[in-house]
Amino acid sequence: MTDPTPFIHQALGLAAQALFLSNPNPRVGCVITAADGRLLGQGFTQQAGGPHAEIMALRDAAARGNDVRGAKAYVTLEPCAHQGRTGPCCDALIGAGIGKVVASLADPNPLVAGQGFARLRAAGVAVEVGPGAEASRALNVGFFSRMERGTPWVRMKVAASLDGFTALPNGASQWITSPEARADGHAWRARACTVLTGIGTVLADNPRLDVREVASPRQPQVAVVDSHLRTPVNAALFIAGRACTIYCGGAMDAAMQARRSAMQAQGARVVHLPAPDGRVDLQAMLHDLGAQAVNELHVEAGQQLNGALAQAGLVDEWLLYLAPQLLGSGRGMALLPPFNTLAQALPLAFESVQQVGPDLRILARSRTAAELRA
Amino acid sequence: MTDPTPFIHQALGLAAQALFLSNPNPRVGCVITAADGRLLGQGFTQQAGGPHAEIMALRDAAARGNDVRGAKAYVTLEPCAHQGRTGPCCDALIGAGIGKVVASLADPNPLVAGQGFARLRAAGVAVEVGPGAEASRALNVGFFSRMERGTPWVRMKVAASLDGFTALPNGASQWITSPEARADGHAWRARACTVLTGIGTVLADNPRLDVREVASPRQPQVAVVDSHLRTPVNAALFIAGRACTIYCGGAMDAAMQARRSAMQAQGARVVHLPAPDGRVDLQAMLHDLGAQAVNELHVEAGQQLNGALAQAGLVDEWLLYLAPQLLGSGRGMALLPPFNTLAQALPLAFESVQQVGPDLRILARSRTAAELRA
Repeated sequence: MTDPTPFIHQALGLAAQALFLSNPNPRVGCVITAADGRLLGQGFTQQAGGPHAEIMALRDAAARGNDVRGAKAYVTLEPCAHQGRTGPCCDALIGAGIGKVVASLADPNPLVAGQGFARLRAAGVAVEVGPGAEASRALNVGFFSRMERGTPWVRMKVAASLDGFTALPNGASQWITSPEARADGHAWRARACTVLTGIGTVLADNPRLDVREVASPRQPQVAVVDSHLRTPVNAALFIAGRACTIYCGGAMDAAMQARRSAMQAQGARVVHLPAPDGRVDLQAMLHDLGAQAVNELHVEAGQQLNGALAQAGLVDEWLLYLAPQLLGSGRGMALLPPFNTLAQALPLAFESVQQVGPDLRILARSRTAAELRA
Repeated sequence: MTDPTPFIHQALGLAAQALFLSNPNPRVGCVITAADGRLLGQGFTQQAGGPHAEIMALRDAAARGNDVRGAKAYVTLEPCAHQGRTGPCCDALIGAGIGKVVASLADPNPLVAGQGFARLRAAGVAVEVGPGAEASRALNVGFFSRMERGTPWVRMKVAASLDGFTALPNGASQWITSPEARADGHAWRARACTVLTGIGTVLADNPRLDVREVASPRQPQVAVVDSHLRTPVNAALFIAGRACTIYCGGAMDAAMQARRSAMQAQGARVVHLPAPDGRVDLQAMLHDLGAQAVNELHVEAGQQLNGALAQAGLVDEWLLYLAPQLLGSGRGMALLPPFNTLAQALPLAFESVQQVGPDLRILARSRTAAELRA
């Protein structure tokens, strides 16, 4: 028996290289080794529509002139059994004569989970499942969220002073955190399928919300919570070739319809999801985003939308940059109704803390999300 | 030549054992070794009035029956040359026949710095200075502050939610942080010479401000900023046998004098240090505390006093416990006048971050203090 750990670690390292690339497909890596542990081929999932990790590894082995018959394939997710542009991965592994597959996890999609393993076993390929499961799941937290809940993993990015202010009382906020923190924030944008903001931020800052500070082979889509469709048609977030969704909730009267038409002319998809109060039904919005194959939703908004999402229990993770400075007063991270007892506090759990330039980056998960994950 | 590093590390470890003990004397450790590196004796500074580290190490060597003639003494601060209850340490080292002294640092008191080394050298003892200097200074940050500036090292302790609130809008604050964080906070109280609070906290919470959650051989003194002497004579912080100083600033009319007399009857020292606005002159207060031999001043107060100290540039270090929860609104860490530009922010630098129970403990220093230290 070969210890699968080092090969699975290698496959996880390959999977991580798909972080900015494979959305909305999961980040998967594959390593093919000979019986003596010699590397025969490796690869990771390419951009959507491109080959999956197993195909890349088989091609790599072929390019190196390596015979993979009887070899072991280490892959960080169950090989797919469905027809894609390159054919089902399990069939490709069977066809290449792979002798054993070690996979970290079953496919989270309840409709297909286990079918890849079943087809491999039916073809006489040995299957082992489990090594690297936790890391593979963590790397694909958004994909698992979408498959298991039908909604994205919601990550809320906030940049604040150490005493919790995201802007001065007069609104000034550029820049509280450092260039290093902003670049790090762009890396988190890059791994998301969609960046979400609110109309308040659009009107105040007119942000582009694209990835500029780090190299990325693709750009996330963008979405706006804009109850009354006030987004200007010349807003910077309308970027040619990038999908943009505007969620509205106000009554669809003639004026709203006119604004909707103007935004659609900008290429935006406008979705009317009214809540009883005339705002956007945020839960319904997350289901729409899930249906649009959004795995990780990266929120960069103001205290209004942040507070509404948090209060509704829809935030899975806070990505918080704290600058080493005190502002004393200003705008907060998330506007919540005043609590009367500490028991009403929204509970989180710290996930990681790291220094980024002069700032701190804190990842904290909502207690329920952490519990779901545990 | 023996590498002094391991012995100085050992002496620093001994010095750290004086953390809750030796105030207002510095935390000092001493290791005496034979030429072959064999340990002959070790010790650390005892409570004020008790023996210093060198005397403890010499006694330890004698108790073990070890001859220290020609031995090396590693000590984390210059041996004193003044007459204490046990006599000058340098004379004791000379008298015992120590051949060489390796010291981390010279005494920071400009009036005595170097005298111990000079007396050792005059008696033919070799002296080396430098190893462990940074760690020894860090361990005695308050002692160095008092010697070099005449004022204590001001450490401000704050417990807050992740979004920066120390209490709900209705004032509820017990407990935002965890029992682990509170016990950790008591360890920081224990190492301080004095715990300072404001009259607002006294009236709202009636705290004892003593060390209860960790074992400590001594209790810090207590001080209150109380401009108009509103501290109730039955306040919990009046503890028999513990020194208490009340700083006031209001006009000393007959009513103030009566209240002063009542507090003095409780054993309090009342100091009138009026600022032009009738509040307490905080800078003068720090000089008074320095004159009272306060090394580290541990502040546990509300946003009012925190803000006044911070705004005046008198805070050296923030000891911040952040709980993994969001409160959305409430009382802030430090009340500052509203800033118009981000350039007005009070600059800090992160010193360390650690998880304490479910909470984060962040140490951050004021940029000027960090620069002074560098």
